[in-house]
Amino acid sequence: MTKEPLVIFTPSGKRGNFPVGTPVLTAARQLGVDLDSVCGGRGICSKCQITPSYGEFPKHGLTVADDALSEWNAVEQRYEDKRGLKQGRRLGCQATIQNDVVIDVPPESQVHKQVVRKRAEARDIVMNPSVRLHYVEVQEPDMHDPSGDLERLVAALEDQWEIKDVCPDLHILHELQSALRKGKWAVTAAIHMGEAGERPRIMHLWPGYYDGSIYGLAVDLGSTTIAAHLCDLQTGEVVASSGLMNPQIRFGEDLMSRVSYSMMNPGGADEMTNAVREGMNALFTQIAAEAEIDKALIMDAVFVMNPVMHHLFLGIDPYELGQAPFALATSDALHLRAADLDLNLHPAARTYILPCIAGHVGADAAAVALSEAPEKSEDLVLIVDVGTNAEIQLGNKTKVLACSSPTGPAFEGAQISSGQRAAPGAIERVEIDPVTKEPRFRIIGSELWSDEDGFDIAVANTGITGICGSGIIEAIAEMRLAGLVDASGLIGNADQTGSARCIPDGRTQAYVLWQGTEDNPAITVTNPDIRAIQMAKAALYSGARLLMDKLEIDTVDRIVLAGAFGAHISPKHAMVLGMIPDCPLDKVTSAGNAAGTGARIALLNSEARSEIEQTVRDIVKIETAVEPRFQEHFVNASALPNSAEPFPILNAVVDLPDVSFNTGGNDDGDGGGRRRRRRRG
Amino acid sequence: MTKEPLVIFTPSGKRGNFPVGTPVLTAARQLGVDLDSVCGGRGICSKCQITPSYGEFPKHGLTVADDALSEWNAVEQRYEDKRGLKQGRRLGCQATIQNDVVIDVPPESQVHKQVVRKRAEARDIVMNPSVRLHYVEVQEPDMHDPSGDLERLVAALEDQWEIKDVCPDLHILHELQSALRKGKWAVTAAIHMGEAGERPRIMHLWPGYYDGSIYGLAVDLGSTTIAAHLCDLQTGEVVASSGLMNPQIRFGEDLMSRVSYSMMNPGGADEMTNAVREGMNALFTQIAAEAEIDKALIMDAVFVMNPVMHHLFLGIDPYELGQAPFALATSDALHLRAADLDLNLHPAARTYILPCIAGHVGADAAAVALSEAPEKSEDLVLIVDVGTNAEIQLGNKTKVLACSSPTGPAFEGAQISSGQRAAPGAIERVEIDPVTKEPRFRIIGSELWSDEDGFDIAVANTGITGICGSGIIEAIAEMRLAGLVDASGLIGNADQTGSARCIPDGRTQAYVLWQGTEDNPAITVTNPDIRAIQMAKAALYSGARLLMDKLEIDTVDRIVLAGAFGAHISPKHAMVLGMIPDCPLDKVTSAGNAAGTGARIALLNSEARSEIEQTVRDIVKIETAVEPRFQEHFVNASALPNSAEPFPILNAVVDLPDVSFNTGGNDDGDGGGRRRRRRRG
Repeated sequence: MTKEPLVIFTPSGKRGNFPVGTPVLTAARQLGVDLDSVCGGRGICSKCQITPSYGEFPKHGLTVADDALSEWNAVEQRYEDKRGLKQGRRLGCQATIQNDVVIDVPPESQVHKQVVRKRAEARDIVMNPSVRLHYVEVQEPDMHDPSGDLERLVAALEDQWEIKDVCPDLHILHELQSALRKGKWAVTAAIHMGEAGERPRIMHLWPGYYDGSIYGLAVDLGSTTIAAHLCDLQTGEVVASSGLMNPQIRFGEDLMSRVSYSMMNPGGADEMTNAVREGMNALFTQIAAEAEIDKALIMDAVFVMNPVMHHLFLGIDPYELGQAPFALATSDALHLRAADLDLNLHPAARTYILPCIAGHVGADAAAVALSEAPEKSEDLVLIVDVGTNAEIQLGNKTKVLACSSPTGPAFEGAQISSGQRAAPGAIERVEIDPVTKEPRFRIIGSELWSDEDGFDIAVANTGITGICGSGIIEAIAEMRLAGLVDASGLIGNADQTGSARCIPDGRTQAYVLWQGTEDNPAITVTNPDIRAIQMAKAALYSGARLLMDKLEIDTVDRIVLAGAFGAHISPKHAMVLGMIPDCPLDKVTSAGNAAGTGARIALLNSEARSEIEQTVRDIVKIETAVEPRFQEHFVNASALPNSAEPFPILNAVVDLPDVSFNTGGNDDGDGGGRRRRRRRG
Repeated sequence: MTKEPLVIFTPSGKRGNFPVGTPVLTAARQLGVDLDSVCGGRGICSKCQITPSYGEFPKHGLTVADDALSEWNAVEQRYEDKRGLKQGRRLGCQATIQNDVVIDVPPESQVHKQVVRKRAEARDIVMNPSVRLHYVEVQEPDMHDPSGDLERLVAALEDQWEIKDVCPDLHILHELQSALRKGKWAVTAAIHMGEAGERPRIMHLWPGYYDGSIYGLAVDLGSTTIAAHLCDLQTGEVVASSGLMNPQIRFGEDLMSRVSYSMMNPGGADEMTNAVREGMNALFTQIAAEAEIDKALIMDAVFVMNPVMHHLFLGIDPYELGQAPFALATSDALHLRAADLDLNLHPAARTYILPCIAGHVGADAAAVALSEAPEKSEDLVLIVDVGTNAEIQLGNKTKVLACSSPTGPAFEGAQISSGQRAAPGAIERVEIDPVTKEPRFRIIGSELWSDEDGFDIAVANTGITGICGSGIIEAIAEMRLAGLVDASGLIGNADQTGSARCIPDGRTQAYVLWQGTEDNPAITVTNPDIRAIQMAKAALYSGARLLMDKLEIDTVDRIVLAGAFGAHISPKHAMVLGMIPDCPLDKVTSAGNAAGTGARIALLNSEARSEIEQTVRDIVKIETAVEPRFQEHFVNASALPNSAEPFPILNAVVDLPDVSFNTGGNDDGDGGGRRRRRRRG
């Protein structure tokens, strides 16, 4: 007997010998090669496209002849005529093995294909969605051996797809008989593969072979905005992204005012639940319209949000979250029917809500953990997601800690005299010349700096309306670097600083960043502004420092700034302010909307769901409110760093002026003895 | 060390030695003795009552002293004062073991208590409901170790009740936090124990200890009437029974006319689905009012019905059931949420729908099988449930067969000249004197026979309005016994029979059962009436005979007549007509509403659900429509038995007159040669 032909699959490297005439798809399945098929090898779906390679493969000691696969057949020709096959491609279910061959499975033919992420340090997204399509041929009924149509469909799914013990949603029973007969005893089934101890479930049936796709939503439900990505559940592609304001804003700008609203108004929590669900539905309609798909093709949705939004979205009164011990109604992940949340998607659509970490550290923080995977990191990573609360995670593959720190709204431009939300017209970047003490800045909506030609024209539409969170941070940090502010946070007067932009403002000084026009008032940085930022940054730094204490470390290997705010602040300025611990500047990266990315991972890969549930169980939760050291750190951290502070890395990069503007009457402790100024050249 | 006291529990006989001071409940649990407790031994629920026995127990070689148990304590006294304890009873969680003792667990303290059934041959009902109450104490939240309230409740249920991996219905999340705090960190949970691969599920929470009961419904959804039993899920007691007309009747009296309605009218199936669900809700409101309970305490409901009602109730178009191959959409048992069927019970109420056996043999037949348990029978039992279709089951513990036979509506009084539904005024019992050929009868609504004093007064209200199914069977059988009808089914004329009550009726004769009054027309039995009954009984007999052929037997050991009709017909008359095979008359019993009883068993014992699902899978289904022998039997079975027929047992009991009234022109085959009459007397 001659040896059976050898088949080598790339990129997996899996190999085996198969009898002449074995379809490539069959060989792939037997070897466990990741080759997609919706129709089960019937030449209908064309998902199993492969590329045979011919010629010499010295590495494998193999020569592949032109006749290694069977000849191009009629099914392939029909597909080529109808849709076109890429050069060199064959259908894996049609081409059979005739001789030794090397076969490449291109990414788009892999079930568990990887979805590209740009950031090298972030985890890969491997496709493994909860809902899948399966084409199946069902036995016709037989009076001699009576059985239900459903029972024969279930048996066929087990026979042809090894999906065991599948059960139907009720509406499937309504459509089943006509779908089977219209499809001539073949249907394409959308099946929820089963999770959390649930049986696999038939969600939808199309008569015959369904040629389209199905979709899922990754939703980041923020206090201010709701953002969603619509993803193709077969390719993993984001087909549309959209967002809208959280309609709950009319009940309160920030979370605590919404919690208060629910406490003061009977039925208030329900009102807010209805509002956010209506907002969701409006967003879903909008995103489906943008993608030009039927909303009923959306079969899965993943949600991440902070604990208060979590409770309000689920219809749970957030009362307990407003007071110690901040008990969540539930912290575990939830698998719910979209219909139970009043969401108008596919009638059988499922939802998954990520677990909350603790009463102040929500499913959004869990999503950040899923995106950034600190529990898989070799080096010690600090992940900071800044909002009204900062959620802070610190750890590596040995141990991960998490806490929340009450930064307050200053980083979002609130409580700042000229502050505003990040929106067109807001100053977002600031530089101050250390010699002249003159500022220049950029506003959101324009790429030009304020001292560049055409700036006035560029900002004519929006005006210069205020300063946003990242702008105020840069402004204060630049003021510190230019010697306009001392380490205690006091602004010097015109005399002390040599800058006419320092003007009296009550008992303290203010720095005029922009003089204003007839339409828009001047923009200044006041000493109370600096105090507000000092409080916020102290909270943030103290949280991080507390976690570092728990791990008994003084420096971290890298820092990830998550969230929209994190994407806009400059690491250098953050460190000059002492917002974040000392760390090489090139090791401080922005993860963008990591919570949204985490939601997308959970949507596209159902195994990531049990993974993050385990991670969240393993995370050590630290409650800052009951940690005495948090208060200690907070008191110590309110000052801005000076050159004597433990920021050796920072001090190597920047020169922190050793100035002090304390006036005798308002002594912060280091007295007037150091009131000399050192000017930089 | 002295030997630990010996504890013997009755009636189980379980025994063991326990340290002095062990609570009786603890000892019972360790031995696996079936002793109830909702509060988990905290002296709240009083479900664990036991009766210690004192004195000599020679059988056990034991003397039980008066101090065998600890002294009556304050908890017991409080309960005694508040509610009273039966003489001699103790609370199992309070009384501790001090010395050797014999302890009786009375039936009402057993979790798996038996529900009494009157019929000796029927299976017992052992309590094991799907939904149970559990009192549980939950740990308070701790900021140092944050976790959700739900997660602590789930952990407590596992710790205190060994219920693992329980999950909540969404509405539980809405109520959880206030219930825990109102109950001072103790709640009573109604838990669906999980079935069909589902996790256990929290359905309801009461703050603290809930002292009430919870309920379930066993519903028999017939084409004509919907009947329900409301059962206490803790005691098994039927607290109310009620019924109403199926509102679908306005779409057609019988099943096939409803199937036609759905075929002829777009949306017709939906109309009928809505109608039956509205009827259900009306019935549930009515039955809850009768029992004076809150409908929201109904947490489980079991439904049985024929295949067409099954589909219409579930919202499935019954189109396919109207034509070969009579394919059911689904035949398996279904576990659904009551809300998905638009039923207004507890918001989390579950429903269970028994499996269908085949396209013509529904969940009602499965319920009959559950009630009568042919698969457990030592002797060969034939079970007949007569309606428009007769569902027939035959077998024993080796094998059970089932089929359906199209008897048509004659047994329900339709197609009979003076026929009517079983209702007050209808003749239901008939006797004919074999000498005088004079009849006497009883009507529904009166206990008196028509020749007894006071009969006229007794029937004055209802009148004598017609003859119902059981009445026409007795009438024809009595006519056959009195020699008024021959074996071919022909009525003799006055001359041949010697009775002036035999009068010409077209080309044949009729027998005047009642002369009528001014208000009510006469009631006669006509030859076409006899033909209709002959067709119906032939179908029934042929179905039974076909199953007997499959088992290669000629007699059965016993016959069970199920259904309302089965409860009213006399076995002797049924056998004289040849409706049922030959069988000792004392072995023919009525099971009453066996389908309803089966529903009640499935409601009270969740294990019975998987049991009947297995039984239904094992039942061999015979489709009469494709069995040539069914047609053969049908042709042969249309005659009435005569003394030469194979009914030896019947012939030993009754004397079947050897008469023949064939007239030459309409010869049935045995010609005029036997036209002699033999008179009894």
